[in-house]
Order: sequence, then structure tokens, then C-alpha cells
Amino acid sequence: MSEATYDVTAIGNAIVDVLAQAEDSFLHEQKLSKGAMSLIDSDQATALYGLMGPGVEASGGSAGNTAAGIAALGGKVAYIGKVADDQLGEVFGHDIRAIGVTFNTPPLRNSLPTARCLIFVTPDAQRTMQTFLGACTQLGPEDIDIQLVQDSKVVFIEGYLWDLPEAIEGILKAAKAAREAGRKVAFTTSDAFCVGRFREQFFEFITNDVDILFANESEILSLFEVEDFDTALEKARGLAEIVAVTRSEKGSVVVSGDQTDVIPGQKVDVVDTTGAGDAYAAGFLYAYTQGKPLDVCGKLGGLVASEAISHYGARAEADLKALAAGL
Amino acid sequence: MSEATYDVTAIGNAIVDVLAQAEDSFLHEQKLSKGAMSLIDSDQATALYGLMGPGVEASGGSAGNTAAGIAALGGKVAYIGKVADDQLGEVFGHDIRAIGVTFNTPPLRNSLPTARCLIFVTPDAQRTMQTFLGACTQLGPEDIDIQLVQDSKVVFIEGYLWDLPEAIEGILKAAKAAREAGRKVAFTTSDAFCVGRFREQFFEFITNDVDILFANESEILSLFEVEDFDTALEKARGLAEIVAVTRSEKGSVVVSGDQTDVIPGQKVDVVDTTGAGDAYAAGFLYAYTQGKPLDVCGKLGGLVASEAISHYGARAEADLKALAAGL
Repeated sequence: MSEATYDVTAIGNAIVDVLAQAEDSFLHEQKLSKGAMSLIDSDQATALYGLMGPGVEASGGSAGNTAAGIAALGGKVAYIGKVADDQLGEVFGHDIRAIGVTFNTPPLRNSLPTARCLIFVTPDAQRTMQTFLGACTQLGPEDIDIQLVQDSKVVFIEGYLWDLPEAIEGILKAAKAAREAGRKVAFTTSDAFCVGRFREQFFEFITNDVDILFANESEILSLFEVEDFDTALEKARGLAEIVAVTRSEKGSVVVSGDQTDVIPGQKVDVVDTTGAGDAYAAGFLYAYTQGKPLDVCGKLGGLVASEAISHYGARAEADLKALAAGL
Repeated sequence: MSEATYDVTAIGNAIVDVLAQAEDSFLHEQKLSKGAMSLIDSDQATALYGLMGPGVEASGGSAGNTAAGIAALGGKVAYIGKVADDQLGEVFGHDIRAIGVTFNTPPLRNSLPTARCLIFVTPDAQRTMQTFLGACTQLGPEDIDIQLVQDSKVVFIEGYLWDLPEAIEGILKAAKAAREAGRKVAFTTSDAFCVGRFREQFFEFITNDVDILFANESEILSLFEVEDFDTALEKARGLAEIVAVTRSEKGSVVVSGDQTDVIPGQKVDVVDTTGAGDAYAAGFLYAYTQGKPLDVCGKLGGLVASEAISHYGARAEADLKALAAGL
């Protein structure tokens, strides 16, 4: 196996976040699923944006956040995702390149706008996401740069992509290419509702293609349709070479074969949980691609996630290299 | 004089801010005037944005921030400013309306894009602003809604507008209309370099039309071309009915005829000084239009400014009504 140029190539929905504060009563009135990511169409996005409070815009997208995090830690990362040739697409491209991520997916021209995710942050720091996918829906197999994937130690794929039939073909192509080149395939189940929509497909993909699985507690419970965490964890063990499960303030558990590493949670003043899982994957994959043992991978994941939830917005504000240096 | 529907109508450049952290060395390399607002053209904006770190976008514009602040305090406010019919224009319009400001200036179609201000925040919390005015350059006298101005207790005008020859005609029209209706004209000198560019015009405008003058220490020194604060303050006294001068951590001084109110500064952990002056004007004008005495106006100005500098970005994150309730 040849030396890889990149630590990670991440593939996902290229999204600009619009974050605003909201009360629980607003979520209730608008019948929004608290804590979840729901898809909305263009008309719904316009109507909901009209009701949303004043916001701030920041580049997001689950795998995009992970890619940005790995780059901020000092890793070599590429990203594949579809924006439009509009102002928000320019913002997304600028931000991900500015942090040092290689991003060459051609923007969509004269068609759908760049995706945006309306994120309602409630006083309990929970985020509720309503996504209009726009240009993301046009991500196809032709956008998957096989050479890039094969030149990366790990290809990281977000489960949200399963909402896009065209994208799935591209993902399977990427996973196949990675395995043929002896690279690792990492995958996040993204969201418990997303697991509900694609449980069978996720099982098949994880079983056939995934080496490193990321999930949070509710996602892994949904995946196995069980109510007990330990039961879910034992079922997950062996499903992939490495399974890392995040548990919010309880930290995370990493299982690999017979090995189990329990990583305690950090004490943090939580401001906004947007991007916590993405940040965990960033810390984990950075440490992993530097050849660190799994407990260190989990620990860095936890540290990067703690930084993410200590401020408004998904992407890091602090110097992540300083976090990584301590390990 | 009839009852006014609005407390304040604010007129200014409608701008979306792009905020990013930067080192002093970057400002030095790019020859940017630290702490100032400089105008750049489209090509310079593209080049500088390419060199800028990952950012966040938030609605800005000096008078826009003041309008948003007054609305957040509970005041009735309208805003006049020019955006384009593009995504950033939509963001600007959404945010200012979402906070409760009336904003009906027709967007510019199929022409220049919405203005953006690249804001470099250095580790000392200072902000250095590079503005591409885009659609703002097309604000003309036809955009000034005379009825709206005459239906407001105060019309608030930002000095930055003097960079736009077409806008000046509109401003003079607004000031004349306000005075004819027995309303007050408030004006901010905006920036010491802006004062340098338009010293004579500012003097003429202040002398003829302005009732309430806002300036910071460096602006008032520049206005009178003196080096001593007390000298500048005595020269300013009588130039307008009320002169409010902000002095960063030293607080502010409000002079009106023989009256002088010295308002001490607040102790704040300063994160980003973007919007401090705009926030002061918001607090001052809200209290003023509620009929509060000048020391209370200055005190609320200071409180709102302290909130603005305690976080990243110009517009308030905290509940400003709670601040106002304490007075």
C-alpha cells in the first residue's frame, strides 16, 4: 500500500448553517422535532426562515465540520460536497478552504441554490435542524474523485447522504475504491431519525464496507431497535472493526474486537450542541490517522467535541492544535 | 406636532459582516489600517476574502446595528438602506425585520451585490473593517421615505453615507423633512478616517441640521483637529443640542448647553469591539425617545455597548429589554 497524501477525505452535504435562538414553544408551534435533523423543501424553508429570529450564518454540513476540525488539528483533509455558484456557495467554499481543506467539487451552475440548515438553538443548548438540501441533491457519482479517495488513509461518509439516491451510488463507489486501495472506510449514522429511514441500508453498508463506525447513543439504539445501551453496544461490537459511540455528558465508548475503552465526559458549560458529533469524529480520526491507540482517539474526540459545544456554532473557535498537543 | 409612530428611523449602509479572527501580522502584511473602516472595490474584496480565515456572517451596517439594538430594547424603529436581491440581501432583510425593524427600501435588482464588510478581529478584540459597498452605492434620494422620517421622533444618520454622493442628497432631504416636522436629527461621525475625508461637510451638516451628535474620542479629535480631549469637548458643546462622546473603557461624556454628564465605563471582558459605537447610539436613542434624562441615556448607551463587545459580532445576543428595565 502506497503512502497516502491525505489523512481523510470526507464526503457529505455541503451546507451553510443559519443559527438563531428559539424558545421551546416555537418548536412546539411549528411542530419541529427537537434535537433532530428534518428535511424541508424550498417553500418550507422560506416560510420557516420568515418566522426565525435574527441569525448568524456559518459553514456547516456534518462531514464538512469534521473535515474542518481535522484540518484545524493539523491533519491533511479533502472534502467532497455540492454547493451552487451563489453567495452561500462561495461562503462554504471559502471557509472550508481557509481552514486548509482541499475542496474541488465543481459547484452547481444556474440551478438549485446552496443548501442551508435552519438551526434553532433552545435555551437548554439543544439544536433542532431543518435542512433545505438544494444543490446537495445534485451530488452524483461523477463528483466522487476516486483518486482522491484512494490517496487518503480514511474516507469518511455521513449517513445523511442516504437521503439522496444519486449520492448513494457515489458513496458505494467511494467505499469500493477505498477498500481496493487498502484504505479505511469510516461512517457516521448521523441522526436517529436518519437511522430510522435507512436502517436496512445502513446495516448492509456497515457490514459490507465500514471499518470505523461513529454513532451516538440514540442512533445505536435505533439501529438495533433496542432500549438498552449495553445490549446495543454488544450488538455493535464486531459489526465494524472499530465502533465509537458518543454519549453526550457521559463521554464515549470505543469497542474494537474484545477491546473496550470507556472515555469519561468533560465538564463543559454547554452553549450550543450543534456539531458535537462532527467534532468528536474529527478528533477521533485525526488521532487515528496519526497512529494513536483507540483510547487516545476517543479522548481527543471528546476534547474537540467539548470545544464545539462551548460556543455558538459548529466549527472550532479555539486553537485545536493546542488540544491535540496535550495527548 | 403630531404623535410619532416610530421612535427612530435610521439611515445607513446595509451591510452583511463577514467576521474572522486575524493576527496583527496579517493586518500589517495586507497594509490594513487597524481599527478603521476602509472602502475596497469588488476585486480587492475577492482577493482579501481569499486570504481571510474561516468566517461567520451576520447582518451589520452601523445604523442597521443601531436600529436592531433599539428594536431589541423595545423601541419602534424603521431602517432605510440598500441591499441587492441576492442571498446576502435576503439575510440582511430577514435579520433586521426579525428583530422588529420596519424595512421597506426596495432591493436593487440585477446589478451590484449586497454590500459586505470583511471584519478582521485581532486577539486584542479590536476590529479592522474593509467594506465593499456594492448595492449601497445605489441608495438615492428616491429611497428616502419622507413620510416615514416625519413620522419618527428621531432620524438617525451615519457619517459613512458621505462616501456616496447620491446618498448625501437623500440625507439632506431627510434632515430637512425631519426639521420641518419638528423632529430631531441624530448623526454619528462613524470613523476618524471618515471624519478626515469629510471634515468640512460634516461641520456644515452638524451646524445646520444636527440635534444629537454621536462621536468617539478619536473622531471628535479629528473633527476639531486638536489633540486634547477636553479642548475638543468644549468645542463640540453647542455645535449640536446634545453631543455624546464615547471613550471606550473610560465610558462616555454627554454635553448639552451648560450641562455635562460623565458616565463611567463598565468592566467587561472584551471579545470583539465590532458595533460598540452603534450599540451605544441604540441605548442612548432608546432612552432619549422614552423621555429619559441625558445621564440615563448615556448610561443605557454604555450598558448596550458593553453587551456588544462581550461577544463576537455587532448585534446583541443578550436580552436588551432586561438591561433597559433596570434604569
